[in-house]
Amino acid sequence: MPDDSRLDPSTVPTPAAPPAPAAGFAASVPAAAGFAQRHIGPDEDDQRVMLAALGLDSLAALTTAAVPAVIQDAGLDLPAPLDESAVLAELRARGRANRPVTSMIGLGFHAAVMPGVIQRNVLESPAWYTAYTPYQPEISQGRLEALLNFQTMITDLTGLAVAGASLLDEPTAAAEAMQIALRGERGGRRTFLVDADTLPQTTAVVATRAEALGVAVRVVDLAGAADLSGLDADLLDSAFGLLVSYPGPSGALRDPSGLIAAARARKILVTVAADPLALTLLRSPGELGADIAVGSTQRFGLPLSFGGPHAGYLAVRAGLERSLPGRLVGVSIDADGSPAYRLTLQTREQHIRREKATSNICTAQVLPAVLASMYAVYHGPDGLAAIARRVHGHAVRLAAGLRAGGIALGEEPIFDTVVATVPGRAAQVVARALEQGVNLRLIDGDRVGAACNETTGEADLRAVWTAFDVVPPDSDPAPTGVDALPAELVRTSAYLEHPVFHTHRSETAMLRYLRRLADLDLALDRGMIPLGSCTMKLNATTEMAAVTWPEFADIHPFAPLDQAAGYLGMIRDLEEWLAAVTGYAGVSVQPNAGSQGELAGLLAIRAYHRDNAAPGAPARDVCLIPSSAHGTNAASAAMAGMRVVVVACDGDGNVDLDDLARAARAHADVLAALMVTYPSTHGVYEEGIGQACAIVHEAGGLVYVDGANLNALVGLAKPGQFGADVSHLNLHKTFCIPHGGGGPGVGPVAVGEKLLPYLPNHPLRPEAGPATGVGPISGAPWGSAGILMIPWAYIRMMGADGLRRATSVAVLNANYIAARLRPHYPVLYAGSGGLVAHECILDLRGLTRSTGVTVDDVAKRLIDYGFHAPTMSFPVPGTLMVEPTESEDLAEINRFCDAMIAIRAEADKVGDGVWPRTDNPLRNAPHTAQMVTADEWPHPYPRSIAAYPVAALRAAKYWPPVRRIDGAYGDRNLVCTCPPVESFAEPAAEVTELVSAG
Amino acid sequence: MPDDSRLDPSTVPTPAAPPAPAAGFAASVPAAAGFAQRHIGPDEDDQRVMLAALGLDSLAALTTAAVPAVIQDAGLDLPAPLDESAVLAELRARGRANRPVTSMIGLGFHAAVMPGVIQRNVLESPAWYTAYTPYQPEISQGRLEALLNFQTMITDLTGLAVAGASLLDEPTAAAEAMQIALRGERGGRRTFLVDADTLPQTTAVVATRAEALGVAVRVVDLAGAADLSGLDADLLDSAFGLLVSYPGPSGALRDPSGLIAAARARKILVTVAADPLALTLLRSPGELGADIAVGSTQRFGLPLSFGGPHAGYLAVRAGLERSLPGRLVGVSIDADGSPAYRLTLQTREQHIRREKATSNICTAQVLPAVLASMYAVYHGPDGLAAIARRVHGHAVRLAAGLRAGGIALGEEPIFDTVVATVPGRAAQVVARALEQGVNLRLIDGDRVGAACNETTGEADLRAVWTAFDVVPPDSDPAPTGVDALPAELVRTSAYLEHPVFHTHRSETAMLRYLRRLADLDLALDRGMIPLGSCTMKLNATTEMAAVTWPEFADIHPFAPLDQAAGYLGMIRDLEEWLAAVTGYAGVSVQPNAGSQGELAGLLAIRAYHRDNAAPGAPARDVCLIPSSAHGTNAASAAMAGMRVVVVACDGDGNVDLDDLARAARAHADVLAALMVTYPSTHGVYEEGIGQACAIVHEAGGLVYVDGANLNALVGLAKPGQFGADVSHLNLHKTFCIPHGGGGPGVGPVAVGEKLLPYLPNHPLRPEAGPATGVGPISGAPWGSAGILMIPWAYIRMMGADGLRRATSVAVLNANYIAARLRPHYPVLYAGSGGLVAHECILDLRGLTRSTGVTVDDVAKRLIDYGFHAPTMSFPVPGTLMVEPTESEDLAEINRFCDAMIAIRAEADKVGDGVWPRTDNPLRNAPHTAQMVTADEWPHPYPRSIAAYPVAALRAAKYWPPVRRIDGAYGDRNLVCTCPPVESFAEPAAEVTELVSAG
Repeated sequence: MPDDSRLDPSTVPTPAAPPAPAAGFAASVPAAAGFAQRHIGPDEDDQRVMLAALGLDSLAALTTAAVPAVIQDAGLDLPAPLDESAVLAELRARGRANRPVTSMIGLGFHAAVMPGVIQRNVLESPAWYTAYTPYQPEISQGRLEALLNFQTMITDLTGLAVAGASLLDEPTAAAEAMQIALRGERGGRRTFLVDADTLPQTTAVVATRAEALGVAVRVVDLAGAADLSGLDADLLDSAFGLLVSYPGPSGALRDPSGLIAAARARKILVTVAADPLALTLLRSPGELGADIAVGSTQRFGLPLSFGGPHAGYLAVRAGLERSLPGRLVGVSIDADGSPAYRLTLQTREQHIRREKATSNICTAQVLPAVLASMYAVYHGPDGLAAIARRVHGHAVRLAAGLRAGGIALGEEPIFDTVVATVPGRAAQVVARALEQGVNLRLIDGDRVGAACNETTGEADLRAVWTAFDVVPPDSDPAPTGVDALPAELVRTSAYLEHPVFHTHRSETAMLRYLRRLADLDLALDRGMIPLGSCTMKLNATTEMAAVTWPEFADIHPFAPLDQAAGYLGMIRDLEEWLAAVTGYAGVSVQPNAGSQGELAGLLAIRAYHRDNAAPGAPARDVCLIPSSAHGTNAASAAMAGMRVVVVACDGDGNVDLDDLARAARAHADVLAALMVTYPSTHGVYEEGIGQACAIVHEAGGLVYVDGANLNALVGLAKPGQFGADVSHLNLHKTFCIPHGGGGPGVGPVAVGEKLLPYLPNHPLRPEAGPATGVGPISGAPWGSAGILMIPWAYIRMMGADGLRRATSVAVLNANYIAARLRPHYPVLYAGSGGLVAHECILDLRGLTRSTGVTVDDVAKRLIDYGFHAPTMSFPVPGTLMVEPTESEDLAEINRFCDAMIAIRAEADKVGDGVWPRTDNPLRNAPHTAQMVTADEWPHPYPRSIAAYPVAALRAAKYWPPVRRIDGAYGDRNLVCTCPPVESFAEPAAEVTELVSAG
Repeated sequence: MPDDSRLDPSTVPTPAAPPAPAAGFAASVPAAAGFAQRHIGPDEDDQRVMLAALGLDSLAALTTAAVPAVIQDAGLDLPAPLDESAVLAELRARGRANRPVTSMIGLGFHAAVMPGVIQRNVLESPAWYTAYTPYQPEISQGRLEALLNFQTMITDLTGLAVAGASLLDEPTAAAEAMQIALRGERGGRRTFLVDADTLPQTTAVVATRAEALGVAVRVVDLAGAADLSGLDADLLDSAFGLLVSYPGPSGALRDPSGLIAAARARKILVTVAADPLALTLLRSPGELGADIAVGSTQRFGLPLSFGGPHAGYLAVRAGLERSLPGRLVGVSIDADGSPAYRLTLQTREQHIRREKATSNICTAQVLPAVLASMYAVYHGPDGLAAIARRVHGHAVRLAAGLRAGGIALGEEPIFDTVVATVPGRAAQVVARALEQGVNLRLIDGDRVGAACNETTGEADLRAVWTAFDVVPPDSDPAPTGVDALPAELVRTSAYLEHPVFHTHRSETAMLRYLRRLADLDLALDRGMIPLGSCTMKLNATTEMAAVTWPEFADIHPFAPLDQAAGYLGMIRDLEEWLAAVTGYAGVSVQPNAGSQGELAGLLAIRAYHRDNAAPGAPARDVCLIPSSAHGTNAASAAMAGMRVVVVACDGDGNVDLDDLARAARAHADVLAALMVTYPSTHGVYEEGIGQACAIVHEAGGLVYVDGANLNALVGLAKPGQFGADVSHLNLHKTFCIPHGGGGPGVGPVAVGEKLLPYLPNHPLRPEAGPATGVGPISGAPWGSAGILMIPWAYIRMMGADGLRRATSVAVLNANYIAARLRPHYPVLYAGSGGLVAHECILDLRGLTRSTGVTVDDVAKRLIDYGFHAPTMSFPVPGTLMVEPTESEDLAEINRFCDAMIAIRAEADKVGDGVWPRTDNPLRNAPHTAQMVTADEWPHPYPRSIAAYPVAALRAAKYWPPVRRIDGAYGDRNLVCTCPPVESFAEPAAEVTELVSAG
């Protein structure tokens, strides 16, 4: 039995700030207030009020009642908490342990300059970084416009028809491209060809994914090939896809159009991995005939950040748009017929297709994509091309200098990368360059690579020449600029012609554009985002601070590791702490999204069973998934090569243990795993979790606990101790990485002892994972390392007691909301003692039946009250799921409850016939300022009810920029690039015209 | 004659980024785009359009035509510009040259912790820092609320009736207190008593001011005095004021109530300089009987920043409120009768009282005051007291440890400062402390001071003990906390009881409060602020970046100078560059506002004449000031002990040279100076400036050119070369320091060779000025050093050509506006060729006569169009003065012109009788969302005209939070602290009640 007093934070004194005072002194000076009291919304007075409303007298009483006794485990071995100043000081010390060196390593990562106005007003602005994924488009028009700019930028540069709103990185984008090609394959071909001149991490990530899908990746050397005739005929017959780079790590600029034509003649789908900066000068993949283009937009102003987060891109030719993985922003119309943005083709998402989904990607890299798009907005096409010409010019001059010095160079022409051959001297040259303050790429004993970037200057070239023992030339005979590019590849087509890429050229204009877009949106900096599907807690400034410090931002992911000692120490801490929190034996932070953590975890299970199968036994490939699970689980299982078997839930929403036992028995010899979320997606601590684990283990399977709801467990119970073998965590939920408007996320995978050998690893960094690992799951060795300071700082400042208190208050807040709203909306599901966990489901189905008011109506009406809607119709159609998190204080929670209660009363007026079902404040919600200030007001309720249904709104009112958006219209009329400016001035009838242009 | 081609930026290639490429290479790689093109709004296409509208074909043609040939001087010796990345790298290198050391020096400056949420969302937020002074209260409710919080905080802590919205620093606040006392003096007493236990910089600044006012400052030792009986009777008879500290630099906590009572019995006004942190534990000055309290709020979260900027405070007892210098926020009502904030008692400002003003202070330290107030909002009274108890506890423990080690201590009890006596060993102890990483205060050869602060921890105490060779005690017998305070001084009265100090306790709640206030206001991040009285140009992010870097923020102003080498180099650069720009021989950056620069310049003139007077000659004390001058000029002249003689202007607004000559002749033997603004306050390059200078020089006077309009001169002409002897500059105008909502400013004084010996200096820092200087004008040796990185970076990035181009475009923008608006509003005044300088005056008097539409109506109607109003009725009543600056692009300028033209058409409808004079969109402006969405609409114009008079507003609309504010009401019913929350829910009739409570 746990010691109750340990669970009750009120009995635990706030720890003093370090260094620990000497004995005898500790009590004489009062301790500084800790961070936990800033992170946790309700103070002790608030908590008392809320507990009283539940008839409880302490947080400990609450969690003891809510969490099943058998899983309670309050032990948590973490360092004593630091206050905010101390953690900043420690972060600075860690930063000093890093050593930023001018990087010319390249390999898909290039130093770039983020304009200050963008850094401060996007990357460092809570209005942008605390926003959620734009599933509620009416309150997301700002970031949707930014993403549409991103899509327009990518389609323009690649010359393809449609681009998504970013993917996790270039290697995963390439893997997704392979999956698109595979999905279209009807002839049973299972070979994916990868040109040898491809980024090594891309080839490796593709191979990781391919293995589980039963696809053979074949690396072929296509250097100098005008077509595919040099390849083995059987190989060609089996190939469904081809990946070539433009340019690749050799630096060579090759015209791939012959290869593309040959591949297309064989119905082999061709993906071109292209550098978007190079595309400002080079003919686009679309013009060259490619089906798909992928790449990274990192060099559009994003810092290196030891590997990420950055925004990968994927664009497809017309005809493939409905196979696009991830998110796609489109133009639709609102209730007034005005153009409005939204995520389009949402039916592609995994929660609909589940195991039949083509991809398990359910996120994007919104914040990095916004940053990259704004870089293009600020520079415009001319500015981007000028940067590309400088980069190219420096590379050509570097090459000319080396050549003049008698150094043999690799294939030319080049764009930005020079490969030099110095037999036996490569390591020496790299070492000498480092002495000059420059990192070069050591390719092998004989070859050295040097990639130029936006920051490259004369001094860098001289350093490289010196490293090669070449006397810096004093004149430059080589052609530069576009003159040095092969004529047949010089771009002549226009791009970025939309006015948005031409009107924000001064810093003042840019600042205002960023402010204007930010003001269109609702994010955590204006109010609660009471989602049930995500944990929208405080993203504290102190946690965010180090993200933009150069000592973290300017480290190349493939720099010598002694230059990244600060990162490595922090990553080691974080992996240990996360293991302590979850009760597992080890953690890998490499997966850069929850979906990737899931895949990594399932691949670990798959590898474990493979290595532990009895000789001749059938492969264990059945994955049991409860019907209540998030669709991503099924999609991930399918991607891991598993067959999904659904397990029923009982009437209380819990896993039906009898059905589970039946299923486990039925598939005992092939059972791979049970995948379950805990607490359940219904927001309940299921009592039977231990029993479920036992059933699966007994049948030889392993247990995967989805960590999505870890915010209800931290400090109270540990999946790794109550029976699970593997989990992924969402650091952007439980551990304070901001949602960024829909990414970046980080999804570490945590495993028990027996799965340790199967964690992800990396071909370029043995230190990043076990030699026996499943391969890389992300392009960078430690994934999105550049934001790991956030969860590190969070845990460091909270300590064990703070984390436990946070979890307890999250549960308190959810139960308080359930208690306040239960008289007005039935609350679905509860655990022991009638308590929910950290979220609650409000059932609106009865209301809809009796009044016609739908979940949508309530969600949109909440916007009028100044709130982001809760999660709609997941996991149960016709419901709203609310998760307040611990960071919301009582005042805000009451404001939300008051709004919900007022909306219930409005719905009743519709039900009572006071307002017609088709014209009432709910159906017409959200109300824009333009609507409520219109000269005519034809509605049967007054304007004041439309705009200010509760008095508090008069002090602080959010006005949505558009009325309710017509989703079906947008899906039918796909427009995924910036619409002409005039369309915003036109009536709805005219909009169809521009749609046909898309 | 100047070479025209040098004036035309289009003929000058943008310089390449350093390091300079080797010869032969420069041309082969295109240069990076420079910062100037981001700073300057109109690009070359825009400029061509605008020049064409003026009938000109180049910028050079414009400036050649506009600027009188005799003053044109395009030479400018500045380093070649750096791009933004390079300047950040150089700033980092400068920062590394500073060496932040834990500071226990004290002396009015204490390390403090700025909460991250406040740093990021106020100090680093353009919404806060780009705002202008809240003269237009309807668009300033956010920062006015923050300032009202500041005033409430100060009145509560000091126990006095009214506090202003901050002053420049503690020493100038003390000097202002002296002036308040002097103003009330009716008996001819001219001695100001200062207790010896006063900050040395305070005594010195007071003395600087006193000298010119004919006041004798007498330092008296009141240690241990229960009353004033120990002082000489004659001295007492001559004294009108007394300044005591609570506590002072000795650290001793003395009860001043006996002194105060004795002084008041003699009608000597008593000012108490009090530490606001100490006041959370100590009886307030008001309770002790003080008339005035002054101090610094620096330790409420503001960084040391090598001396500033910080917010000084001044509070007075009832009866003195109308003598308050600077700004005062009050509560009034708007047109709906709702409470609304505004600056109150504006008649106190110098532009009204001129030379009869009690002070020349026309600014405040709004941004630092907001930061300090938010620190109090976030911590609340309990949190502040807890911090004070920790600081005090550490000091008591430090003392106990020293005492136990046999070290003799100074007077006790103490609050935060320990003074130890170590005969002959003081320097050695200070050196040993520095070895331990701690700066102590070297008082003299025998005494060392150590002040504890919010960041002090156990390690610091141990370092100090070690420095004193004291074995750290292992137990602590001394009482701490309030137990160690003298019982008669322990505070029992409550403070900060207003809910605002109790409701934003979590970071989430604080973040939202800051966002909500920011959203109420219009600042440069949302639109142009076309003031004529201030230069509201871009405050670039790169310029702002270093302000919050610890290597600049954490340097104590009295730290050993080798710890501040980065600062000193930067200050040297800046002083040299400003001298180059202005054509003077030397510059002092010490004055921390324009008004202080003015005073410093006039004191230099005064000192020069004193030292150069023929024996027996009368003192030169007449200052000629044109009637068009800003009132501050006259107030400053009066403070410098000069008599003001007004010189007439001619019908074109120019100085009447004949009248000037007459006045100069009339006062030839006593002529001190001419003070003139150039270009004139009418926005005109007066042709006769050279002649005016000659006239004054001939009569033995010197010429003071007010640098307020320097933005029309930089790179085109130099006051120091066309005849002036001294100027002050406004770095917050011409050199990009943001206005911060009304401060901080920096007002360097620039002088010709003969005035160099009379620049400001500093008693604690011989390096800060000439030994023969006029004394300190600010409390810190280099004034607001912590923001000098901003103008440094601006000049470093612009270079000579960039600055010249900026000036030229500023003139272009103003002339374009004048040309576009002239058909709709007469433009008053112009120079040669009909051109204005960098601003233009729109004459509304005819319009008012014919339609009844006033300047106020137009200004408030501009809010409905999304604009901050131009300067109203200065320098000419019934006009609007517009200064666009170079940072506004053509689109924004046209948006403004379109608004002004539309408003003219609206006014004509009133004139034509279409709308009544008392009920029209102008008279009712600004329109709030609540007004336009009200259920009833009784106005004769439609709601759509009220809200969206031009279509572009539908895409981006700013809604003011209040309707037009009744100024007279607020002045009549003075309420200068936070009103009760309920008042916002009450109708107007009820508001009078709360007013009487104030």
